[in-house]
Amino acid sequence: MAAGIGDAAAGRLIGLGMGPGDPELITLKAARLLASLPVIAHIHAETPEAGAAGPASGGEAGLARGIAGDLIRADATLIAIAMPMREDRAAGAAAYDAGAARIAGHLAEGHDVGVLCEGDPLTFGSFMYLAARLSGRFRIEVVPGITSMTAAAARLVLPLAARTDSLAIIPATLPEAELARRLDAADGAAFLKIGRHLAKLRRVLTAAGLADHAWYVEHATRPEERILKLSMLADDTAPYFSLILVHRRGEATR
Amino acid sequence: MAAGIGDAAAGRLIGLGMGPGDPELITLKAARLLASLPVIAHIHAETPEAGAAGPASGGEAGLARGIAGDLIRADATLIAIAMPMREDRAAGAAAYDAGAARIAGHLAEGHDVGVLCEGDPLTFGSFMYLAARLSGRFRIEVVPGITSMTAAAARLVLPLAARTDSLAIIPATLPEAELARRLDAADGAAFLKIGRHLAKLRRVLTAAGLADHAWYVEHATRPEERILKLSMLADDTAPYFSLILVHRRGEATR
Repeated sequence: MAAGIGDAAAGRLIGLGMGPGDPELITLKAARLLASLPVIAHIHAETPEAGAAGPASGGEAGLARGIAGDLIRADATLIAIAMPMREDRAAGAAAYDAGAARIAGHLAEGHDVGVLCEGDPLTFGSFMYLAARLSGRFRIEVVPGITSMTAAAARLVLPLAARTDSLAIIPATLPEAELARRLDAADGAAFLKIGRHLAKLRRVLTAAGLADHAWYVEHATRPEERILKLSMLADDTAPYFSLILVHRRGEATR
Repeated sequence: MAAGIGDAAAGRLIGLGMGPGDPELITLKAARLLASLPVIAHIHAETPEAGAAGPASGGEAGLARGIAGDLIRADATLIAIAMPMREDRAAGAAAYDAGAARIAGHLAEGHDVGVLCEGDPLTFGSFMYLAARLSGRFRIEVVPGITSMTAAAARLVLPLAARTDSLAIIPATLPEAELARRLDAADGAAFLKIGRHLAKLRRVLTAAGLADHAWYVEHATRPEERILKLSMLADDTAPYFSLILVHRRGEATR
């Protein structure tokens, strides 16, 4: 009795933004859905490794699951999708294929399935890879989440953008020249996915004359949070859940 | 008995992100604070006018107050800060001065004061102008909010950024050449503050070959929400609470 997108009996796939780490930064809507959805899927890291490139790695196994905590309905069916290290594209794709197939089974039986996502599901979220595999066959909805960028800015009381400022969200994985070009075209910037790209990023910020203005934020709003001026950071690499904020005119008022 | 930042008896100024419009997109933390804070301030438009340039105008008087609804503690003291049209910088500054002075009175008496902010307080939020006037004298905290950008993307199920994408948040108020330069340095973009800048933005997107990929979202997640392809929008101006999303490779899966 498989059901599809045209079939009112089929379930919905719902990406649930879990925010940056503090469980209180979940929205009322996501909390309500966690308490009611019969099936909850989450990504589970197969091989956690510090400094690796994906959200399923970096020792962050099940972060979104941890944020959701016991807000999840007690009798919900949990689907843990085992995700190998991101560097292996083919293995990653196979893991998403397998996860999407398991989710599709529940959707076809008429059950709504929530997918737990760190931060916001559509901002560098792995939800997109599941959604791409299930769109067209099933209805898809998204509950937006608090991003690590706004959470880090909040902890610093650092304005991200005002008046005619533009703000760029830039993955540190880009080549050095591209990082410089994108920073040059913005008033404020948040660099994500820092990992082993920290030295490259320091060079880019120094060349732009912004190294002394940059803030480093690790695990924003979590118990292990670290916040310091980038110039005071001695580390050579950073975990996946870290970011650097900088603004040409901005000063933190913290 | 005035108290200051070094005085534990003084209250805290707390910027409260109210999200884009749907009251369910308030965070659990903001909801808890709304229910407990003894003083709540909000910006109240003095001269609402459609298509004007500021969040306190455009017929949006008290949007954040409307989102907070009856989550606010019943016996809370409400401070409505009357804000003239943004075009008059001096009048705006005087209004922030007066509002900050009223807030300072409550802080000095030891009361925490929450300030209601549409979206996120530090992303184009007027909270920054109050915080700048009170920092140094009082402790300041911020509860991040769901931005209109992530809310609009969620409604479209449109990925904002993936893998090595960068994403730019660009106010449409910038000159045409600057809009083009900032768009050129990004994979995805959200244009805010559209108002009377719609024609200029259409030219920029057309020149970049992206006009047919762009989505127009007005009042995301509110009852009066409008979502359509930019190419289908006949209007010449847009309200303040509208935005345009575009991604070089992105397709909405809605």
